Amino acid sequence: MRDIVQLKQIIEEALSSSLKKKTPIHLYQPIEYILSLDSKRIRPALFLSVAEMYNIPFEQVIEPAIGIEIFHNFTLVHDDIMDKANLRRGRETVHAKYGLNAGILSGDAMQIVAYQKICSVHPHILPEVMHLFNQTALEVCEGQQMDMDFETEFTVSEMEYLQMIELKTAVLLACSLKMSGMICMASVEDLNHLYQFGINIGIAFQIQDDLLDSFGSEAAVGKRIGGDICNNKKTLLLIKAMNTQHKYEKEILHNWMQTTEFNQEKVDDVKKIFISSFAKEYTENKMLFYYEQALKSLELLSVSHDKKAVLKNFADLIVNRKN
Amino acid sequence: MRDIVQLKQIIEEALSSSLKKKTPIHLYQPIEYILSLDSKRIRPALFLSVAEMYNIPFEQVIEPAIGIEIFHNFTLVHDDIMDKANLRRGRETVHAKYGLNAGILSGDAMQIVAYQKICSVHPHILPEVMHLFNQTALEVCEGQQMDMDFETEFTVSEMEYLQMIELKTAVLLACSLKMSGMICMASVEDLNHLYQFGINIGIAFQIQDDLLDSFGSEAAVGKRIGGDICNNKKTLLLIKAMNTQHKYEKEILHNWMQTTEFNQEKVDDVKKIFISSFAKEYTENKMLFYYEQALKSLELLSVSHDKKAVLKNFADLIVNRKN
Repeated sequence: MRDIVQLKQIIEEALSSSLKKKTPIHLYQPIEYILSLDSKRIRPALFLSVAEMYNIPFEQVIEPAIGIEIFHNFTLVHDDIMDKANLRRGRETVHAKYGLNAGILSGDAMQIVAYQKICSVHPHILPEVMHLFNQTALEVCEGQQMDMDFETEFTVSEMEYLQMIELKTAVLLACSLKMSGMICMASVEDLNHLYQFGINIGIAFQIQDDLLDSFGSEAAVGKRIGGDICNNKKTLLLIKAMNTQHKYEKEILHNWMQTTEFNQEKVDDVKKIFISSFAKEYTENKMLFYYEQALKSLELLSVSHDKKAVLKNFADLIVNRKN
Repeated sequence: MRDIVQLKQIIEEALSSSLKKKTPIHLYQPIEYILSLDSKRIRPALFLSVAEMYNIPFEQVIEPAIGIEIFHNFTLVHDDIMDKANLRRGRETVHAKYGLNAGILSGDAMQIVAYQKICSVHPHILPEVMHLFNQTALEVCEGQQMDMDFETEFTVSEMEYLQMIELKTAVLLACSLKMSGMICMASVEDLNHLYQFGINIGIAFQIQDDLLDSFGSEAAVGKRIGGDICNNKKTLLLIKAMNTQHKYEKEILHNWMQTTEFNQEKVDDVKKIFISSFAKEYTENKMLFYYEQALKSLELLSVSHDKKAVLKNFADLIVNRKN
């Protein structure tokens, strides 16, 4: 069984040779740039892991796996424009480096290149693969829209938040796993379990992301801690903290939410309330709940126990990660 | 044989019921808006015309025809952002009305909805349809990039200009015709002729567009005449005029090209040079050349002469249009 480092190496090699055409250079240079940035490559790694589980050679899945990764990077390029983010993992974002127009158009082209890669699957399964991918891609857009809508909404419920992260993050992980399962000719039951594993691990992944944004280590995460807090982002942490029974804490939160600039005092104050209101504990438990749900789906898969180790390792990695 | 007004009505009805999902509203409202704007619907009309030519019921082609139109509208939404255009056919552009983020994200979603519609073709032909569409969509992005690159390039050759409009405009018309031919099970030869008809009529279409932008009537075109002139757009008119043998004309052009604001005196001066340098005449002849090339491809199609009338009418309409 190949470990995650080995999988990542295979993915990087395939990605670096994924662009056949290079002109016009102003269209393709930004694509090469974003694809060359350091990344965990979780989606294609999940894709390859499923193939390994079903004893299918990587050559049969690497192209669509790369397609999913390119689609994911397209969403990053456009999301960074919408979020006005100039840095991603310590490097310039595409629009910051190449300008707004390059960010928009290169992103558009990446979406098409993603489709090209995914369309390389066997013609026999292309209709169902396209159906899955089209639906997933649209859901990702819907999730991003909900995320933006939340910025201007004063109250967001826990359910709305969970729906948003399911669409924005989890469905693409689930899609990677299921699409790989389709190529491996997995049973309909297994496809459902793979999808559910992806949804649950994806939700856990996003919750951990939110936790790291407030409670991670700056050195490990690679960005300033407290960005979500300063932007009043409606994370599960904030949603739960806003429901605190302590009037004094509520008042502090409300006062800080009048500003959106970065302010270390605000970060420290709000983090304290996240802890004292048990919002942090609640959020951590929620993440573990989805992790355990994911393991249940994994249990149900009709492959041998030792074959499941690679996906189990993934799940462990996601909840234990520090960046 | 249904005329273009009847075809347009069928298309409008299908388009207006094309969006199944409506939430989140901030994602889907801009899509409904752009699709509701007045438009010639040339691409889906070509799509339906081919079906009529091969005696295939419209129901079999209407979904992908709508998909192509939605893709075209997606490119308009993103191009308008890149071109900083606030008006399109006298109405607010999407980003002007709903904001930059809505323009980007709704455009992204439209691209996916386009794929969904196109994927409704019979599974048997899906691989080749996807191959054609992916390639076309990427070429449209490449054409848009070339167009933007030309803005900052001092000299653009006629060949570069023709390559740009082929990619930016002609390939999507050609794709509409060929994809419809695929659904109609046209022969490989016919598919090639349909594609070539589309390429040539598409180039003629874009050249006519450029001519109207400088020499059309404001009332008919629905926008201020001379936009391309003021933006120093490297159209065939300007490329040819810049090659004039008259030093005095060359000097006037060079001087005016130092500015990009709208200036009626500039429009009048440059139009005079377009005429005196025979650039206008050359451009009109070039358009007619591509129109005639299109008719030659049409001749070669293996359907009866009277069946070809609808595409012939289209070609005539394109070169004679006033808006």
